[in-house]
Amino acid sequence: MNYPNKINKQVTKTEISHGNRGMNLEMLLNQTNNYYKEKDIALIFKKPTPIGIVDVSYENNKKMIKKAYFQTQSTLDYNGIYKGKYIDFDAKECLSHTAFPLSNIHKHQTEHIRGVIRHGGIAFLIIKMNGLYYLLDGVDYLNYIDYEKRKSIAYSYIEEKGLIIKEGYLPALDYLQAVEKKYFKGE
Amino acid sequence: MNYPNKINKQVTKTEISHGNRGMNLEMLLNQTNNYYKEKDIALIFKKPTPIGIVDVSYENNKKMIKKAYFQTQSTLDYNGIYKGKYIDFDAKECLSHTAFPLSNIHKHQTEHIRGVIRHGGIAFLIIKMNGLYYLLDGVDYLNYIDYEKRKSIAYSYIEEKGLIIKEGYLPALDYLQAVEKKYFKGE
Repeated sequence: MNYPNKINKQVTKTEISHGNRGMNLEMLLNQTNNYYKEKDIALIFKKPTPIGIVDVSYENNKKMIKKAYFQTQSTLDYNGIYKGKYIDFDAKECLSHTAFPLSNIHKHQTEHIRGVIRHGGIAFLIIKMNGLYYLLDGVDYLNYIDYEKRKSIAYSYIEEKGLIIKEGYLPALDYLQAVEKKYFKGE
Repeated sequence: MNYPNKINKQVTKTEISHGNRGMNLEMLLNQTNNYYKEKDIALIFKKPTPIGIVDVSYENNKKMIKKAYFQTQSTLDYNGIYKGKYIDFDAKECLSHTAFPLSNIHKHQTEHIRGVIRHGGIAFLIIKMNGLYYLLDGVDYLNYIDYEKRKSIAYSYIEEKGLIIKEGYLPALDYLQAVEKKYFKGE
């Protein structure tokens, strides 16, 4: 009998050399955050997606949601603590090769970035673009949108200001290396 | 379709004269956190309840959840930033007059409290008990459960170690006053 997930895994050459293939940005970050937690490096979690519940019912004494709709997060998706500092970020995959559309970030999220920085926290975006992962500091993000009145961020700006996050095996996306370089340098 | 939060709110006399009557702890804290945000005092939010989605469908091109169940949060419910410090807490209403049952706090949540403190953040519980609101510091909580091998926290301990949070109109539950006293004294 064949048990689908117990089948001996045929690890092809391609899968060995590109360990994370098939994992999207969210999966890479979840794996990375689990790794940080296991190794006691940081406590950073993705917030659950907020939903609006329309109808619930009980099945075998368990409360079940029968109807609900997705709501948009009014903050960024990820937050937590690293070396005593408050960390807050969002992660976006960008399909365009030339510019990151600002429609990706809601207005209240931009205000949230502004607020986190004002209150002394670290806020940034992780952007996947042209096959690379960038950490774009919240201050650089705000500077761009406040002074350039465009509807997207030019890739050249992300290349110039962004820090490259290297993809690896464990953790899959060691963004705290970039955080360390950007915000803790010299400590 | 009726979305619960769009229903016209009937404000009764009782609700006017006893401002917070009928508001449970979660509502009081949401109102308080909104107030802190509006006044730019702190950015603290309740995390959405995580759900496991079983089935989705599309209605008028909108993705709807047709079946889902509630999951337990592996962290505490509230977190954010205040005066540059990472804040993390949970809020519990306790019906017993004599002891706070530890079954209220999951094991992974206790470990989360331990982790937040180890990483330099502020972690605590807000407990409503005997008609009063207490802030119980995470360290005091851990000390009790690590050294007393009981299944509940005696009310006398909460009375001794806890800081009273005064109920008010705006904000409804000004817990940052207690946070200020406990963690920022002398700054």
